[in-house]
Amino acid sequence: MEAADRAIMEKDFDTLMSFYTEDALLVIEPGRNAIGKCQIKNAFIKISEYFDQGLKVKQDGLEVLKNGNTALVLAHTVVSAPNFPAVKRSATYVFKKSEGNIWLCAIDNSYGHEVIRKPLI
Amino acid sequence: MEAADRAIMEKDFDTLMSFYTEDALLVIEPGRNAIGKCQIKNAFIKISEYFDQGLKVKQDGLEVLKNGNTALVLAHTVVSAPNFPAVKRSATYVFKKSEGNIWLCAIDNSYGHEVIRKPLI
Repeated sequence: MEAADRAIMEKDFDTLMSFYTEDALLVIEPGRNAIGKCQIKNAFIKISEYFDQGLKVKQDGLEVLKNGNTALVLAHTVVSAPNFPAVKRSATYVFKKSEGNIWLCAIDNSYGHEVIRKPLI
Repeated sequence: MEAADRAIMEKDFDTLMSFYTEDALLVIEPGRNAIGKCQIKNAFIKISEYFDQGLKVKQDGLEVLKNGNTALVLAHTVVSAPNFPAVKRSATYVFKKSEGNIWLCAIDNSYGHEVIRKPLI
């Protein structure tokens, strides 16, 4: 996770893509997803531009629930940028163990429960 | 999800187990997990006893993020019982598509981000 966060901050999108499965899903914002490395890379380039190239990502507490070759990762993620006050998100990720025993991100949802369309009553 | 919630409320634990993978992980409470159908069934029997056989579970808003044979489900889950005031949890589940195209629960974490040991600063 730290290496991925560093790649985001260094705008090293090729390294960043090496942490994703070929068909990974990234939640760009609730209701809008990027599917596959090509779309995800383009999304990160646009996200980086949106944040004036100064996006900072930090995991502030993290837990992994593993089941065979699948892992659910829950994290408190802090996102900030020079033009954007720090926001804490309850991020949820699904990782899969690929050949060579490397864990890759299959579902990247930094918004956590914010993706639920129906509001909590 | 509704069929599983109904099975919990009707204490039909054999039907309930049919919604889980063989090696599924259930978070009993943060820091304590049941692994596999046998442990999960025993955990549900004890949970049911704890709630005076009157446990009620309701999903109040739900979103599915699918990637191939894996799905991340985020739900606002309301848990209540005659001896227990209603609690809203931000539940996170991972489902896997098994042979026969049936989706089974592989990771059942009704506590969501409460499983993170380090508190959010």
